[in-house]
Amino acid sequence: MASGVALDGTRAERRNWQPIVQQFVTALGKDRVIRRKEELLVYECDGLTSYRQRPAVVVLPRTTEAVAAAVKICDRNQVPFVTRGAGTGLSGGALPIEDSVLIVTACMQKILEIDYDNQRIVVQPGVINNWVTQAVSGAGFYYAPDPSSQSVCSIGGNIAENSGGVHCLKYGVTTNHVLGLKLVLPNGDIVDVGDMPESPGYDLTGVFVGSEGTLGIATEITLRILKAPESVQTLLADFNSVEAAGKSVSEIISEGIIPAGMEMMDNFSINAVEEVVALDCYPRDATAILLVEVDGSPADVEACAQKVRDIVTHNGARQVAIATTPEDRLRLWKGRKAAFAAMGKLSPDYYVQDGVIPRAQLPHVLSEIDALGKKYGYRVANVFHAGDGNLHPLILYNNAVDGQLEEVEALGGDILKLCVEAGGSISGEHGIGADKRCYMPQMFTSVDLETMQWVRQAINTQGLANPTKLFPTPKTCGEAAMAQTVEFAGTERF
Amino acid sequence: MASGVALDGTRAERRNWQPIVQQFVTALGKDRVIRRKEELLVYECDGLTSYRQRPAVVVLPRTTEAVAAAVKICDRNQVPFVTRGAGTGLSGGALPIEDSVLIVTACMQKILEIDYDNQRIVVQPGVINNWVTQAVSGAGFYYAPDPSSQSVCSIGGNIAENSGGVHCLKYGVTTNHVLGLKLVLPNGDIVDVGDMPESPGYDLTGVFVGSEGTLGIATEITLRILKAPESVQTLLADFNSVEAAGKSVSEIISEGIIPAGMEMMDNFSINAVEEVVALDCYPRDATAILLVEVDGSPADVEACAQKVRDIVTHNGARQVAIATTPEDRLRLWKGRKAAFAAMGKLSPDYYVQDGVIPRAQLPHVLSEIDALGKKYGYRVANVFHAGDGNLHPLILYNNAVDGQLEEVEALGGDILKLCVEAGGSISGEHGIGADKRCYMPQMFTSVDLETMQWVRQAINTQGLANPTKLFPTPKTCGEAAMAQTVEFAGTERF
Repeated sequence: MASGVALDGTRAERRNWQPIVQQFVTALGKDRVIRRKEELLVYECDGLTSYRQRPAVVVLPRTTEAVAAAVKICDRNQVPFVTRGAGTGLSGGALPIEDSVLIVTACMQKILEIDYDNQRIVVQPGVINNWVTQAVSGAGFYYAPDPSSQSVCSIGGNIAENSGGVHCLKYGVTTNHVLGLKLVLPNGDIVDVGDMPESPGYDLTGVFVGSEGTLGIATEITLRILKAPESVQTLLADFNSVEAAGKSVSEIISEGIIPAGMEMMDNFSINAVEEVVALDCYPRDATAILLVEVDGSPADVEACAQKVRDIVTHNGARQVAIATTPEDRLRLWKGRKAAFAAMGKLSPDYYVQDGVIPRAQLPHVLSEIDALGKKYGYRVANVFHAGDGNLHPLILYNNAVDGQLEEVEALGGDILKLCVEAGGSISGEHGIGADKRCYMPQMFTSVDLETMQWVRQAINTQGLANPTKLFPTPKTCGEAAMAQTVEFAGTERF
Repeated sequence: MASGVALDGTRAERRNWQPIVQQFVTALGKDRVIRRKEELLVYECDGLTSYRQRPAVVVLPRTTEAVAAAVKICDRNQVPFVTRGAGTGLSGGALPIEDSVLIVTACMQKILEIDYDNQRIVVQPGVINNWVTQAVSGAGFYYAPDPSSQSVCSIGGNIAENSGGVHCLKYGVTTNHVLGLKLVLPNGDIVDVGDMPESPGYDLTGVFVGSEGTLGIATEITLRILKAPESVQTLLADFNSVEAAGKSVSEIISEGIIPAGMEMMDNFSINAVEEVVALDCYPRDATAILLVEVDGSPADVEACAQKVRDIVTHNGARQVAIATTPEDRLRLWKGRKAAFAAMGKLSPDYYVQDGVIPRAQLPHVLSEIDALGKKYGYRVANVFHAGDGNLHPLILYNNAVDGQLEEVEALGGDILKLCVEAGGSISGEHGIGADKRCYMPQMFTSVDLETMQWVRQAINTQGLANPTKLFPTPKTCGEAAMAQTVEFAGTERF
């Protein structure tokens, strides 16, 4: 532990940054180090804009060696550091902490190697998610994980948060597509982990993906690329009830069909999209719509699409539209893709929650979320990955009104509690970050969390890599939350 | 570190076992503790029979609590322990070490829960691999990883070694099918890890799978079960050259087809099978045969099988047989499944190597293996997972002849070196265990290995859980091997 730096990242007195900044300038070059307050402003927060903190200094390395040099300076001076990619994360994983260094990998944008024979690509962490697909699409390949932010989020951030996306139902989240990593550990050592699908020894690649910057920085990332499917069809079904849509989701999966994606939008979201973006895309009187995309060989896609159509019809879908051309498919997806932006236009602010529930619980949980929204007096829109049971309730509020943020956070917390009680999880794809660490004891016993901490402390020995993230601390999460941890330790997990 | 116990598990003096055995008897019951020498005999080795060591005591727990009690006794008395499932492992992972406790999970054979809605099953570690499929096949499900030993190997052992199998080409190895684990840590603590596909926090499930008993004991295992494919076809193609067979493998994958399995056998293996088992299954004059299985929807399978047939024909296959009924498919697979047994009848002993290479290197590496076999004067048969590039050269020898085992081990080592030089790995699915730890520095730098050791020491703090396995030590692997580690640290990985 750095002297004067507590586990939660606070410290008693400000440090003298001048000599440390000089070390960064010497190692990385003057143009790679940002110290002016007005230039630091942009790094105050990531996609979770309700939390803000200015870092003391920002460094912009361009190579593995430069990252290692920067981390070694932090290690030597016992300065905490936070890593940031494109800064689109929604849980505050890249939120700076007070009196810390922000290491930004956004300038590391090189594609280092493409190996079609072995279906892999090696990229630097600042490469934008959909650049990967663009780089290999000419040869008929693509990169499967597709977060909504894929045109702006970086692969490094995807690794940190183990990002998901619409097509992760069939193809798995980020961790299923990372074959190997070159890492700079928190002491500045450079190591290679993984690299072969069945590498012997401990699966450190797996531990690193989703570790939210607490175990070091990935500087070269080997990703799996997939052959693009020969054929794709998208179905849009609209329903009079959430139950019927939810039942269709369960039955499609039970039938053995794994759609590439299966998304649901509720009536409020549909109307938000239609009102604001005026797409004439979805029927405004539908209680819920389901978007189901199937891909594979033409024969297989035809057969699956037919089965999906039968299932939704049997469950009372009023209409089913099927799109087979890229243009028609894009049109059906347009409303779904515009949903978040529509909320942004409808309301001064919105808070996106991210929880997971077993698919069978969809109707129950959605009706409970509705009741919670009414109780708190906020509008909650539901646009989500129905096939994975990964909910994204969007709570609309106004940050300028005193007290609203606190109420919205309490409502978000109640929704998470609901997910856990339904047998689910407090995060599907946005990570824990600064936002949700106080909820970790709702999912894990104190012994479970302690085991993770052993691993953290084994690799992040000085506690300098992204402190205050991922794990709860008594100071920030309150004695009550921590006491709860101890209580859960003695009982069955739920 | 236990007093008197070195990292390699040796110790200067034998301990007084009487009071320790008494603690086991009190905690587990008399019938759960084995101390008689003749009864201990069966536990002297696992599937790697060339290494043998009698444990001091064997305990046979039946519940998580009993495992935790046994581990706590080891922890309290600073006694090293090794965990064993069915004992079919091929790398000596369950080989006892001198003066240690062997914790055998083979009696933990309960299926605890089947949840078809969420496609999962919870089992104890002693459950035999193919019992899982048997338990869910009535409802149309199956468990994908299928090691050759699936009728006798246990799920606990599969977890420890991250086992593969014929159908892992399409469906992934064990780690891709483990959703959660209840673990007894080396200090006796019980923790739950994973449990949800997208669980937040560190992926400790991923680290545990393949950790070969060095991080504790899995006592409840949540596995993913898959819907059985609607349709399956198996193709047998025979070739005049290994090159043509290898080229077919690469082209099938490049075409975007992922067969459920794609196996190759060389002429020596074909003749061994035909001679010993007299199946009249494969053409004896073929230089190599390829078995390709495709599964999925009937339309998809039909289309893929046609493409596979075109590719192998175009590459000069002399004949292509296609089996569509379960009976015909079984007949085609019969020779492949009998291959190891045939070697056992042809030769007093055989040593199975397990290495991975990039698929494109198949012809080159196979011809080099042939040359190495001739150089050492041993017959080497090749029967392997061609689609994954996972080789299983079988070296035939006679353990009763002095010096043969050493020569065979040297030949096996040269084959591994060849795999690494070709850009591959020293283990595909059998693990490192006692057998291959001295080769780890050929694949990992000293910093890579040190990082794994940090994790090991964080969880296995006293070093009591399966010492002498997985990682190299100067004492057993020689100063040279360790020096090599340091040398590699400064150079490019290969």
